[in-house]
Amino acid sequence: MDLENFLRKNSNKEVVVVQGLGFVGAVMSLVVANSEKKDYAVIGIDLKKNINTINSINSGIFPIKSSDPKIEEYYKKSIKKGNFFATYDTSGYSHASVIIVDINLDVQKKSDNKGNLNSFNVDLNPFKNAIRSIGKNCREDVLILVETTVPPGTCMKVVKPIIEEELTKRNLPVEKVKIGHSYERVMPGPEYVNSIKNFFRVYSGVDLNSAQATEKFLKTVISTKEYPLTRLLNTNATEMAKVLENSYRAMNIAFAVEWSRFAEEAGVDLYEIVNAIRMRPTHNNLMYPGIGVGGYCLTKDPLLASWSKINHFNSKYNLVQSEEGVKINDKMPHYAFEFLKKAFDLDSLRNKKILLLGVSYRSDVGDTRYSPVEPFYLNCIDDGAKVDIHDPYVQHWEEINIEVSQDLDKKLDMIWDIIVFSAAHSEYKNQKVISKISRMSNIKVLDTLGILEQKDIVEINKKNKVKVLGRGDI
Amino acid sequence: MDLENFLRKNSNKEVVVVQGLGFVGAVMSLVVANSEKKDYAVIGIDLKKNINTINSINSGIFPIKSSDPKIEEYYKKSIKKGNFFATYDTSGYSHASVIIVDINLDVQKKSDNKGNLNSFNVDLNPFKNAIRSIGKNCREDVLILVETTVPPGTCMKVVKPIIEEELTKRNLPVEKVKIGHSYERVMPGPEYVNSIKNFFRVYSGVDLNSAQATEKFLKTVISTKEYPLTRLLNTNATEMAKVLENSYRAMNIAFAVEWSRFAEEAGVDLYEIVNAIRMRPTHNNLMYPGIGVGGYCLTKDPLLASWSKINHFNSKYNLVQSEEGVKINDKMPHYAFEFLKKAFDLDSLRNKKILLLGVSYRSDVGDTRYSPVEPFYLNCIDDGAKVDIHDPYVQHWEEINIEVSQDLDKKLDMIWDIIVFSAAHSEYKNQKVISKISRMSNIKVLDTLGILEQKDIVEINKKNKVKVLGRGDI
Repeated sequence: MDLENFLRKNSNKEVVVVQGLGFVGAVMSLVVANSEKKDYAVIGIDLKKNINTINSINSGIFPIKSSDPKIEEYYKKSIKKGNFFATYDTSGYSHASVIIVDINLDVQKKSDNKGNLNSFNVDLNPFKNAIRSIGKNCREDVLILVETTVPPGTCMKVVKPIIEEELTKRNLPVEKVKIGHSYERVMPGPEYVNSIKNFFRVYSGVDLNSAQATEKFLKTVISTKEYPLTRLLNTNATEMAKVLENSYRAMNIAFAVEWSRFAEEAGVDLYEIVNAIRMRPTHNNLMYPGIGVGGYCLTKDPLLASWSKINHFNSKYNLVQSEEGVKINDKMPHYAFEFLKKAFDLDSLRNKKILLLGVSYRSDVGDTRYSPVEPFYLNCIDDGAKVDIHDPYVQHWEEINIEVSQDLDKKLDMIWDIIVFSAAHSEYKNQKVISKISRMSNIKVLDTLGILEQKDIVEINKKNKVKVLGRGDI
Repeated sequence: MDLENFLRKNSNKEVVVVQGLGFVGAVMSLVVANSEKKDYAVIGIDLKKNINTINSINSGIFPIKSSDPKIEEYYKKSIKKGNFFATYDTSGYSHASVIIVDINLDVQKKSDNKGNLNSFNVDLNPFKNAIRSIGKNCREDVLILVETTVPPGTCMKVVKPIIEEELTKRNLPVEKVKIGHSYERVMPGPEYVNSIKNFFRVYSGVDLNSAQATEKFLKTVISTKEYPLTRLLNTNATEMAKVLENSYRAMNIAFAVEWSRFAEEAGVDLYEIVNAIRMRPTHNNLMYPGIGVGGYCLTKDPLLASWSKINHFNSKYNLVQSEEGVKINDKMPHYAFEFLKKAFDLDSLRNKKILLLGVSYRSDVGDTRYSPVEPFYLNCIDDGAKVDIHDPYVQHWEEINIEVSQDLDKKLDMIWDIIVFSAAHSEYKNQKVISKISRMSNIKVLDTLGILEQKDIVEINKKNKVKVLGRGDI
């Protein structure tokens, strides 16, 4: 089927374009295509270089694997209805009454091999080009709904001028176009669809018309009765809210890191402390320490904010504390590597056989983007170790380009010098795993995420040696 | 009544001594004296220099005024029962089966007149002297329960050695003494008693006996059925938990400060953003910006921790992020002062008549300890302003040694150049107050805590000019 056929078949429906078919856009497309309140035809548009994703969607295979069964369910429903089509053909924009921007906006980080962030930059050009391709094709009365996490100020200072410039070039009026901003809070994992459809949303528009159009659209795709919308005064406010949220989380993790080091020095178990404090409702989001922070958001959003403060608002000062959060977190996997050597009194890992349990950056999710296990792995390799990897959710580790085993039993039957718990997947918390490791001898076990309980440690320690990040010798 | 008479009258009761009769000790004494599970006789011991507090307690006037009616209720019950007595006589320690340590342990901060923290120190000597006075008098089988917020490591490295040294000097065995640690989470205000009696507690002991004795005692004074106790592995852990909790809060406030500056630059309202984000359960403790951080705990506890890391555990590194939290917060009132001048384009405040609404560091509480309003006030005075003060909860501002008005109507009928909302007391949120200010003209109004709503601002702005910290011109 081509775009023309798709449009003919769906001629009675309002067209929504989703720009960008990544972790957000692909699933956002499904949510819009499965709206219970309005019958939309959804065109997903991505760059030609992502032709594999496009073809996959059009040939009956959804490109993102997920533990959320709703993903497959929604995708199958959209195939049955025939109201979801993917393409790189930018003429698709011209049919849309709503265009949702779900493309990436990356931060370029320059770090040394210890994880020290030396400098960073935000290259807006790819984002600007994407917006321009909308401006060259869109209807004059379209609603452009930006969901991308952007440096605060971007809708007013970047999106609006580009769209107006392109409409003017096309001799179209600029008064009718609407630009809204509403950020997603997508969480890949078992609640993937719910994290879009059944969750609170904040939104705004570059003017009143835009805000109203955004509200009207969101009400047709999100369960706004159960999760009421919040309108903020302007797009700067919603853009800031998003990066503030993630900076808060990143900083709170960095806080756990600092205290984790103190716990190691003072011979206490930070996990035990965090669990005790979390009973206070005001402190129930206190974070655990660990091997590091991964994923697409927390590793860069505070930097987007800091960059914006100086570049979009001419501030003399960056966001020191929020930047510091990223810097501290970036060093976590390198610290974990140093901790491994120091804790077990090893000068080098040369020829050590190491098994890493988990490469995903989040527990029970198969997402390796910016995983902290990556620098940890590379450090081990650089130091001469022979590293093998298991992860129940990852078959191919894209960033490193190696295969990952799913057979935990088999891996635990092999001979290792060191076993590292590097992700907190449920499978590793199984008593069978503890028993298997306990039966080994002279193995060094590093728990980077506090997944072993005190009794497990006692058990394994009988014939082996366990060390836990964030836990001193007690 | 003297101590001897008190003991004779209560000879059938177990004696508990509370050392220190401040904001924690005085109320802890009431809670112990009113235990429903055990009949205790409580002796409050403080230094002779605090004779006023001691006399007040013994003469029927509880020395702390509070909006919590339970304080008076508990105090009256203890008078009726005759089981609470205060003294500076250290021989009182010898009668106790439990001694609760509720004295202060201060940090000496050296800051410049802009609020920059240049250095700080922790002088342990007053604390050591207090512990020594216990050691010189206590029973060999006493339980010493430290509730004071101390640098982690203090029970093991300071309290235990001093007590054992003193017992040894008295030719007493050291094996039977028990030392526990369990920190309070006292919150002066309408839930004062509940914050001790009906809240979660974390505890530990320097050994198993100590932990067990601590548990047994706490169960007799705290509602542990509804608020289960948590035992941690050692006293370092509970000591760390306390300063970690408060460092977390202090840092999270500092975070709001940083974003507050950004909001001012970007023309958004941080209060609006915080309210929107707080709908997320994981972010519901996001703090508001404001004039500053006050009170006895958040202004020093992160420094106690940082000091301990280096001095008690020989770490090479302090707790950078947690110290930074204190440093950022310390500068808030100075920033508020500069903001006032800049926002209203004033070179100087010379001869300006300023009304400060609120001096307490917390809303609806009469507690001025380390209030951020103090440096703000002093900055205004230094700049030549004529400052008058209202606070419904404070009659005498002890730190500045001036009287404070309680008559808001009268104050608002006078002529002012500038009115500053400097505490978020409920009385100021009254529509009558907004109306009165709206009817003035050419007044400059600074809201340092976001207590004015958008509609109030519009109303007041008709004839006056409002500026809000953390809110740019929208």
